[in-house]
Amino acid sequence: MKDRFLRACRREPVDVTPVWFMRQAGRYMAEYRKVREKHSLLEICKTPELSLEVTLQPLRLGVDAAILFADILLPLEPMGAPFEFAKGEGPVIHEPIRDAAGIERLRVIDPAHEGLGYVLDSVRLIRKELDGRLPLIGFAGGPFTLASYLVEGGRSSHFDKTKRLMYGEPAAWNELMAKLSEVVRRYLVQQIEAGAQAVQLFDSWVGSLSVDDYREFVMPHVARILSDLATRGVPVIHFGTDTGALLGAMREAGGTVLGVDWRTPLDEAWDKVGAGVAVQGNLDPTVLFAPWDFIARSAKRVLDRAAGRPGHVFNLGHGILPETPVDNVARLVDFVYQPTVRA
Amino acid sequence: MKDRFLRACRREPVDVTPVWFMRQAGRYMAEYRKVREKHSLLEICKTPELSLEVTLQPLRLGVDAAILFADILLPLEPMGAPFEFAKGEGPVIHEPIRDAAGIERLRVIDPAHEGLGYVLDSVRLIRKELDGRLPLIGFAGGPFTLASYLVEGGRSSHFDKTKRLMYGEPAAWNELMAKLSEVVRRYLVQQIEAGAQAVQLFDSWVGSLSVDDYREFVMPHVARILSDLATRGVPVIHFGTDTGALLGAMREAGGTVLGVDWRTPLDEAWDKVGAGVAVQGNLDPTVLFAPWDFIARSAKRVLDRAAGRPGHVFNLGHGILPETPVDNVARLVDFVYQPTVRA
Repeated sequence: MKDRFLRACRREPVDVTPVWFMRQAGRYMAEYRKVREKHSLLEICKTPELSLEVTLQPLRLGVDAAILFADILLPLEPMGAPFEFAKGEGPVIHEPIRDAAGIERLRVIDPAHEGLGYVLDSVRLIRKELDGRLPLIGFAGGPFTLASYLVEGGRSSHFDKTKRLMYGEPAAWNELMAKLSEVVRRYLVQQIEAGAQAVQLFDSWVGSLSVDDYREFVMPHVARILSDLATRGVPVIHFGTDTGALLGAMREAGGTVLGVDWRTPLDEAWDKVGAGVAVQGNLDPTVLFAPWDFIARSAKRVLDRAAGRPGHVFNLGHGILPETPVDNVARLVDFVYQPTVRA
Repeated sequence: MKDRFLRACRREPVDVTPVWFMRQAGRYMAEYRKVREKHSLLEICKTPELSLEVTLQPLRLGVDAAILFADILLPLEPMGAPFEFAKGEGPVIHEPIRDAAGIERLRVIDPAHEGLGYVLDSVRLIRKELDGRLPLIGFAGGPFTLASYLVEGGRSSHFDKTKRLMYGEPAAWNELMAKLSEVVRRYLVQQIEAGAQAVQLFDSWVGSLSVDDYREFVMPHVARILSDLATRGVPVIHFGTDTGALLGAMREAGGTVLGVDWRTPLDEAWDKVGAGVAVQGNLDPTVLFAPWDFIARSAKRVLDRAAGRPGHVFNLGHGILPETPVDNVARLVDFVYQPTVRA
């Protein structure tokens, strides 16, 4: 198996820096758009054969890992909060949850047997199809990020409804976080049991919090998930954005690999969290819209900042944007693999 | 004059920590909403008597400074890029600027005599009306933030069009930034000449950039503005959000006071920029939606982190949100003033 991704996660020596991309299967690829002409995003997620097809599409770019094609919001539906993806608006939760009664009604499901069996079927199918060639990454949303969608009803600029609940009804908030965290924990454990060789916790919006609020309202829940996962034998990537001030607390919460967005220089981030953890990142996704020379210069800076330390997984600081030129992505993979060209 | 705001900006001793709020005149106040029933945002900005009325409204809360009521986008119209505020969508630039030809057509105006005389009339009128009771803060948008609105055509999540121009056509980008910066510089100098006793540069979206990109594409322009302003004898507040990793570079760019959003603990931010500069912030604006005890606890933490160092101006990490309970704002002002209650 092409195992340098897993080796880097464990801070073992690698021949070259491994690379994969968040949202590496997505609208920037013509073959993905073709599937989307016939199927909705949720249809793809819920049909293992389609999830498999789409998961495999970006592998032609030469990346070091496949990541399950799914959506972080999938657990919300069986928990009792159905949603849809409205055109151009992102997810819309039909009945946002804003009080203790709504939280009370949320079900702590057993994902495998209560509504998310299709995801685990996809994991098994993809793992079988990969046949040991490449490792498969599973994933779930972090509890704060999931809670923010549940409470806001969709995307948000200020997360004010979420924070209002958090500050104003801490008991209800902790109940909500406990329910989400337990589902996320079970879901990731089941993905690992189904064959995922690493998992990523996408706590994408956690960087909207002050460090104090993170420590008080989020970290205990995330730590519970991550301490369980630490016993499961696979690397766990702990990811957020806007986390310049949060990285230390996120490191304390756990994870084998810390995801770092593009705002913090990789060496500065690494100094902050210590050499005992691997790091993933951290090119600005918009750099992929630039002329090649600029992309190469920016990627080289990321690689140079990680030079000499084992445990760097090259990635963007967040997901690939929909209009990204696919050729730039392919060329970037080659670039990451060619240290002599870089030197 | 109640001068503790100006004294804190200069890191001189003060009796209690001074406090004001970004967007302290705005929709959260009933008296502002009443003015808005009859007048659009732009009408208020363009009518000195209305700007005066609205600027004075929050002074009943007991804050230590008045801030000119205006909008950072006002200079765009006379520069040749008219816009409107669309209901619920924020600003819409009628013809976004995305290429060298569009940048070429932008006019480097003399604000006082070419389209922004009404702002300077407002400054003079407010200053006269304040009659030495409170200092008046003037302001302008930072060049990156203004450029992002011009290029994106409005608000943006990813600033991808802005960054595409920046990366792909650096000469055109620098021309755009040079034009915006020269207008901003003249505009702030004229506000000072008209009576502003401090000015704030709102480079609100600059935290979307990596430190490398900030240093290469933004900092030289901001530094040019700030080094001129440093000779004008009034404090200059240099503000951005999401700046956890950028604070050091922003400090190098200049300013008497650095604005710090709520993501970075104030003491950590101050350690990063050094004791030679004042800091402003840094309560999360959403905390004002919380029960009073939580607000007090959070505000106390901000104050405690600044304790023993001269040069703290209490503020939120960004503007007051529209639905904020006004009573919480008033009570917070009292709280900041009562160190014995806090101790």
